[in-house]
Amino acid sequence: QDKQNERDHRELRIDKVGVRGLRFPIQIRDKAHVLQNTVATIGMYVDLPKEFKGTHMSRFIEVLNAHGNVVHVENITEILHAMQKKLHADTAHLEMEFPFFLTKKAPVSGMEGLMDYTARFDATASGKEIDFVLTVMAAVTTLCPCSKAISQYSAHNQRGTVTVKIRSKQAIWIEDLIALVESCASSELYSLLKRQDEKAVTERAYENPVFVEDLVRNVALKLNAHQDVTWYKVEAENYESIHNHNAYACIEKG
Amino acid sequence: QDKQNERDHRELRIDKVGVRGLRFPIQIRDKAHVLQNTVATIGMYVDLPKEFKGTHMSRFIEVLNAHGNVVHVENITEILHAMQKKLHADTAHLEMEFPFFLTKKAPVSGMEGLMDYTARFDATASGKEIDFVLTVMAAVTTLCPCSKAISQYSAHNQRGTVTVKIRSKQAIWIEDLIALVESCASSELYSLLKRQDEKAVTERAYENPVFVEDLVRNVALKLNAHQDVTWYKVEAENYESIHNHNAYACIEKG
Amino acid sequence: QDKQNERDHRELRIDKVGVRGLRFPIQIRDKAHVLQNTVATIGMYVDLPKEFKGTHMSRFIEVLNAHGNVVHVENITEILHAMQKKLHADTAHLEMEFPFFLTKKAPVSGMEGLMDYTARFDATASGKEIDFVLTVMAAVTTLCPCSKAISQYSAHNQRGTVTVKIRSKQAIWIEDLIALVESCASSELYSLLKRQDEKAVTERAYENPVFVEDLVRNVALKLNAHQDVTWYKVEAENYESIHNHNAYACIEKG
Amino acid sequence: QDKQNERDHRELRIDKVGVRGLRFPIQIRDKAHVLQNTVATIGMYVDLPKEFKGTHMSRFIEVLNAHGNVVHVENITEILHAMQKKLHADTAHLEMEFPFFLTKKAPVSGMEGLMDYTARFDATASGKEIDFVLTVMAAVTTLCPCSKAISQYSAHNQRGTVTVKIRSKQAIWIEDLIALVESCASSELYSLLKRQDEKAVTERAYENPVFVEDLVRNVALKLNAHQDVTWYKVEAENYESIHNHNAYACIEKG
Repeated sequence: QDKQNERDHRELRIDKVGVRGLRFPIQIRDKAHVLQNTVATIGMYVDLPKEFKGTHMSRFIEVLNAHGNVVHVENITEILHAMQKKLHADTAHLEMEFPFFLTKKAPVSGMEGLMDYTARFDATASGKEIDFVLTVMAAVTTLCPCSKAISQYSAHNQRGTVTVKIRSKQAIWIEDLIALVESCASSELYSLLKRQDEKAVTERAYENPVFVEDLVRNVALKLNAHQDVTWYKVEAENYESIHNHNAYACIEKG
Repeated sequence: QDKQNERDHRELRIDKVGVRGLRFPIQIRDKAHVLQNTVATIGMYVDLPKEFKGTHMSRFIEVLNAHGNVVHVENITEILHAMQKKLHADTAHLEMEFPFFLTKKAPVSGMEGLMDYTARFDATASGKEIDFVLTVMAAVTTLCPCSKAISQYSAHNQRGTVTVKIRSKQAIWIEDLIALVESCASSELYSLLKRQDEKAVTERAYENPVFVEDLVRNVALKLNAHQDVTWYKVEAENYESIHNHNAYACIEKG
Repeated sequence: QDKQNERDHRELRIDKVGVRGLRFPIQIRDKAHVLQNTVATIGMYVDLPKEFKGTHMSRFIEVLNAHGNVVHVENITEILHAMQKKLHADTAHLEMEFPFFLTKKAPVSGMEGLMDYTARFDATASGKEIDFVLTVMAAVTTLCPCSKAISQYSAHNQRGTVTVKIRSKQAIWIEDLIALVESCASSELYSLLKRQDEKAVTERAYENPVFVEDLVRNVALKLNAHQDVTWYKVEAENYESIHNHNAYACIEKG
Repeated sequence: QDKQNERDHRELRIDKVGVRGLRFPIQIRDKAHVLQNTVATIGMYVDLPKEFKGTHMSRFIEVLNAHGNVVHVENITEILHAMQKKLHADTAHLEMEFPFFLTKKAPVSGMEGLMDYTARFDATASGKEIDFVLTVMAAVTTLCPCSKAISQYSAHNQRGTVTVKIRSKQAIWIEDLIALVESCASSELYSLLKRQDEKAVTERAYENPVFVEDLVRNVALKLNAHQDVTWYKVEAENYESIHNHNAYACIEKG
């Protein structure tokens, strides 16, 4: 009564089959060689040859459990190969999305606060080959150059989100990709700003106006100049303070 | 085999039982006496006396279908009484949340665009008595008075959302409640702004800085002065352009 | 002071720039030649040549306003070409996602209720060429063949969502794509079921068990057999009743 | 230029003002006296007397930072009192919502997997008095008694969510509240089930059919019998496998 192992006659290979929406506590090894505790939302998939009726869903969970909860570049490869082996599959996919935290000093007072980001791994093993895409989502300030140019004083500004996906020759730290993105906006964000910091951030944003177009181009320029980055997709979305819709721009490296 | 009508022995009355998360196209009669087409997400509930094991879920849908899709104040009462009758219940609850649209002229060019809001009805019949709460969610611009006061130029500003719930002696138009809210912010929002409009809106916001605290107080003051409003709850949430968290304030009329 | 028209020197073409997250009331012409009112969430983008600093965001709204709110295949092409012209762009993209409703008769009682689906258009004009992808998301019942085979009685079943994206030689009605999907599950869903209908649907699901793998294969088989479909991607996700995570499968036609 | 400390003349006290939507890594001390790492979404508010124009938003973050990230009952009280002191407020509110994990053995194979829940604290200090509400959201299986009674075989079943809020004389462990809820459904959920476990869970659900009404009554009965529980609100929502809307029930203890 192993329904999954029955012969299927529709002659259709399934590209991806598995589990998704699984919440799981993980530890990420960060640049300071510290283990950061967070909670990931996970998807795990394999391909299914046309001969088989079904995959074995419980085995994904067994593989996940067997590899503990410390995630770094090396054990992602191990998890993928374990999925291929346990599920008799050619290709295996692992997706993990999780909040990521950095301690950041306010620009004048130097007071420390924790900033939150979202990071994501999309890893695929095809036979022995590994494809790895790192995604970072960072919120920033954008101040409109047009509004600044035409207005007697002030300019509309707002929170925006930059989503960067990269492939690279060598692993790039989440922290470094965040820093790259934050340097391209009107200002980076902070969780803790005292009065003198708020003044500095307000003025910095006014001195560095960027359209959503500028934001994606600034990030793309820096990624083009990065010797390890082989592919990227940069998206920015501004939650316009004068509209109830958003401004969006995207550049993908061919 | 009518399981629902079986005698229950746990001796526990259920406060609310019914259906929720039902999407349904509706028409709202607006102030200009035009029928506005939109799509509501609906919840319908009744109480269940301790004697009965279950309610009859399909009857909620039958009541909804029987009353067509034109919603105005009068037929909400009809729907509630039909629920009471059809489900043999003392109390009946109807919730509807839906996008609501207003044509708005840009402040200088006069060009027209459609602004979207979210409105919500929470209506309850207890015997013959009707309780009706109208909710409006409107997005606005807020510009920080502190940032303006301390900075050499500019001020951080952002999109914020004001959520107002009211009870009133007579029905108040959604349009009027939206106008009341929008007049309390640094600026209202627009879907279509040409260059000269963007200049006007940028400068208006700078001339009218409001904290999230000012925003809820301004709305509360106007609701206190409104002769028909008997209860309100005002909440505002600013998606701060310098932080990745939000500022929030709330006043409820005792 | 037209900042957007300034010469940009970063030498980076932007793939997509525009507005998103815009709610807008639309009318969809359906198969019965009736106009169905609904509310879309819209994105509109163009490419931006490397010479220009910015696009003109207000023009997207002007194009949308100029083309009214009745959407059918012909005026999507018109909207795309109007975007290209008004924004001096080679490529234009229009995305619309909206609830779509169908009246459905219960299988035994014949009583009518309204079922809700989500549909989506992704249309692109590159010069004169139009690429059009239709997406339909339909919720269905899935009953697990393994659970049925190994259990003394019953089988776990649950709501699942099928998302189908297609390209086709000629326009395919949303209604027809929904019907195709619903015929591939253990049972279709209904908004209104009386007792005899519930019995029929329960038994039908038990007689037609499908894994998430079967579901995507059944849909893919039918799309392979459809003479107008040139490309598809079929995804299914089951909100497993025995787990707190979901089962997922996907087939894309090369 | 301390705008926040200016005298306000609108004579309106603000009930709650502060920060929300703040993601923050925390540690929860669980019943096994182990520290569980997770990520909370936090809201922190105080009241604002009518004399003052604004609160000092950065101080909320300072209080949070000062109290580290280990959360147990005692330091919630400390955080609240620190907020009152630092912000010169009579009342202080702290909200934290976070994923919570339990290792659970499959019913037959005994294999272990991690189940995820959502927990929430809503704590308020009014002067020296503390009000504490614990919320647990647990997903379960529900199998319909009516469908079972009328159908020749099988019964529709689905994932449902139970949300329980309690006040109690003494702190109640999250684990104990989860166990109480899970014992009231047709079956509890598991992350890892092998074939023999799936059989057991399928049959157990069929042997224990519950309406959404039964589910809330079962939980309410057990809470009524619990000597430490002084107030509760129990809500259940079933993601019906035969409909695209949900069934809902709610009981609140007077």
